[in-house]
Amino acid sequence: MNWSDRFAKCTALMKRSAVREVLRLTARPDMISFAGGLPAAELFPLDRVREASDAVLRNSGRQALQYGETEGLAPLRDWIAGQFSRPQFQVQRENILITTGSQQALDLIGRVLLDEGDRVIVENPTYLALLSAWRPVGVQFLAASSDADGLRTDDLAPLLSQRPRLIYLTPNFQNPQGTTLTESRRKSLIALAREHSVPIVEDNPYGELRYSGTALPNLLEIDAAANADPELDSLVIYTGTFSKVLMPGLRVGWIIAARQLIDKLVQAKQGADLHTSTLCQHLALQMLNDRVLDDFLPVLRRNYGERRDVMLDSLEKHFPKGATWFRPDGGMFLLASLPDSVNTAELLPEALRRNVAFVPGEEFHLYGRGKNTMRLNFSSAPPDRIEIGIERLGDLLRAFA
Amino acid sequence: MNWSDRFAKCTALMKRSAVREVLRLTARPDMISFAGGLPAAELFPLDRVREASDAVLRNSGRQALQYGETEGLAPLRDWIAGQFSRPQFQVQRENILITTGSQQALDLIGRVLLDEGDRVIVENPTYLALLSAWRPVGVQFLAASSDADGLRTDDLAPLLSQRPRLIYLTPNFQNPQGTTLTESRRKSLIALAREHSVPIVEDNPYGELRYSGTALPNLLEIDAAANADPELDSLVIYTGTFSKVLMPGLRVGWIIAARQLIDKLVQAKQGADLHTSTLCQHLALQMLNDRVLDDFLPVLRRNYGERRDVMLDSLEKHFPKGATWFRPDGGMFLLASLPDSVNTAELLPEALRRNVAFVPGEEFHLYGRGKNTMRLNFSSAPPDRIEIGIERLGDLLRAFA
Repeated sequence: MNWSDRFAKCTALMKRSAVREVLRLTARPDMISFAGGLPAAELFPLDRVREASDAVLRNSGRQALQYGETEGLAPLRDWIAGQFSRPQFQVQRENILITTGSQQALDLIGRVLLDEGDRVIVENPTYLALLSAWRPVGVQFLAASSDADGLRTDDLAPLLSQRPRLIYLTPNFQNPQGTTLTESRRKSLIALAREHSVPIVEDNPYGELRYSGTALPNLLEIDAAANADPELDSLVIYTGTFSKVLMPGLRVGWIIAARQLIDKLVQAKQGADLHTSTLCQHLALQMLNDRVLDDFLPVLRRNYGERRDVMLDSLEKHFPKGATWFRPDGGMFLLASLPDSVNTAELLPEALRRNVAFVPGEEFHLYGRGKNTMRLNFSSAPPDRIEIGIERLGDLLRAFA
Repeated sequence: MNWSDRFAKCTALMKRSAVREVLRLTARPDMISFAGGLPAAELFPLDRVREASDAVLRNSGRQALQYGETEGLAPLRDWIAGQFSRPQFQVQRENILITTGSQQALDLIGRVLLDEGDRVIVENPTYLALLSAWRPVGVQFLAASSDADGLRTDDLAPLLSQRPRLIYLTPNFQNPQGTTLTESRRKSLIALAREHSVPIVEDNPYGELRYSGTALPNLLEIDAAANADPELDSLVIYTGTFSKVLMPGLRVGWIIAARQLIDKLVQAKQGADLHTSTLCQHLALQMLNDRVLDDFLPVLRRNYGERRDVMLDSLEKHFPKGATWFRPDGGMFLLASLPDSVNTAELLPEALRRNVAFVPGEEFHLYGRGKNTMRLNFSSAPPDRIEIGIERLGDLLRAFA
């Protein structure tokens, strides 16, 4: 037996993400891609990034290119702390760990808090890469039901009685469904989690990308404000990222949590990659100080909001009767459900032949559900291409009906 | 009980690295630091980095700030493949995974190849952060003896009979001892590993930083050349990094291995952080294309070589009789062994009071050995400061003798 064969037999728990496999195909310029979760790179304010990069390398180049602390760049952590502090409670630098994107945040949380056999409550469907981050640990996922208003807290009791170790959810503009958890459900969820002593991982990559409706308080905020501890002693573990509001190529995300949990996460991160790129952290900080985020967010909201509207209108116009979806108030995704007879994974090769890409929804689901669903991203393609792409998908669906 | 206390009880296997704790103190400008493994930031060619960064953002800014493939930037992988190919064998792009520094390379290898209870052969002492990366997996380390010529392959038989899962070593300028494995031992090691079917992790962060003696073939090269497989089907898993030869703030490292192992590592990396910063990868590639590495390496070799010489001379002059060390032909470190009565961890606070920092050697050792050793870095402080620092340490050692 050769070495390749030997290595091929290693660790079987991991599953290569089909999303990333489809993404590979979508690099072709004639492809209209509703797959992936790519920000619209044509909107990146490149001149501002160049200015910021130049300023970093001129003013603090030697620090920005040197090793850094595992916890992350102190002024960047302070900036984040400032954003999340409220009159009732303070987030301190010590409550924050900078991570290599929020994917690493999820990975580190899994490593520190989860052991083989632990149960974790997630929405069904849920964020695909959360499943791939925590599956190798050997956890058992408990599927919470959800509707247009997000996770159904009134259905949680039977799951909570199974003594889960964590609850994971994306309260704002969930990936893949685009749903947002209502304020009353947020409060119920916190109350239930406190009653059962189960920490919540609040994953919020899209929260700032709201195009309609009113901003709701984060779970972290609701819990910490009720708690009003001078130290942030919350059961909520919050994960955020600059990937969706600045640029994903930076790979800069963060975790906000109780100090002693952050200490554990820092230890895990030391072993994982020592620290996140100092250069990328300095660049992110410089852009924040240069108000690039303040200027760029409205551009993103305007453009993505328009793209969402075009996608919703096109779906109405071109998708067959019986197809349903929730209307997202923000974010980058929605999930179209088709009649049960449709298998979107089988449809995909045909769609790719017509130069349209999407992600079959099954991968986001537990228990083999979601075969009749497709995740559609609306942030990446320009409006006119969105209309064309949805029309092609609609034609395809009718041809296969 | 509050949440902080609950979280404090999580996962106990991780140990916060004392190196990084000492590093925190050494940020003070009056401190002469032989701790850490910091490159000399004052040598960084900042103008060249700025030019490269500007070129990246002008020519491929949108790609450099966008999400990228988990495997890493194709032309960067091709550059690395070219560096490691030889007439007898080709390294292909598919044999290479870009990692977030070589710390992540070690972490991913541990995740994919190691299970709880597995045995791993390491040198004693060995690289501290390898221990912190693999300890949480629950592996059992088997300590191989070493001398001035590196790992003693003639002593390996009893360890190999315990059916280890991996052998880990740093053949060039080992951290912490500064030793280099001789060519004959390299060949013996490969033969033994093949005989016992144990893969080798060849960690080579310092290989390019040689100041005396002759370059030796990598283990990967010896094995692949003997094998002469058109596909790289080697038992050697090679980890490299740009941290020591360009800048650590980039966090760009790599793994070279058999294709099917790379496939597994890619899956693990997807869950760990999706991919390494595209911006940092583009910047590294641009610097390679601009020949920054070709121009910078001689500067590093000249300066670090001089610093090594100054440290060796100062040790001869100022350290008490009975202190011993190996003379490193390259790299950044040496390990001074003091009489058994000396406990360097107890000495450290006094040294810090005199504004000199080092890392107590015990942390690099297994079985509680090395209490009488100190790791000394010679790449970070300028020559005149090295002499002053070693003199202070020598005075301190005499005062405590």
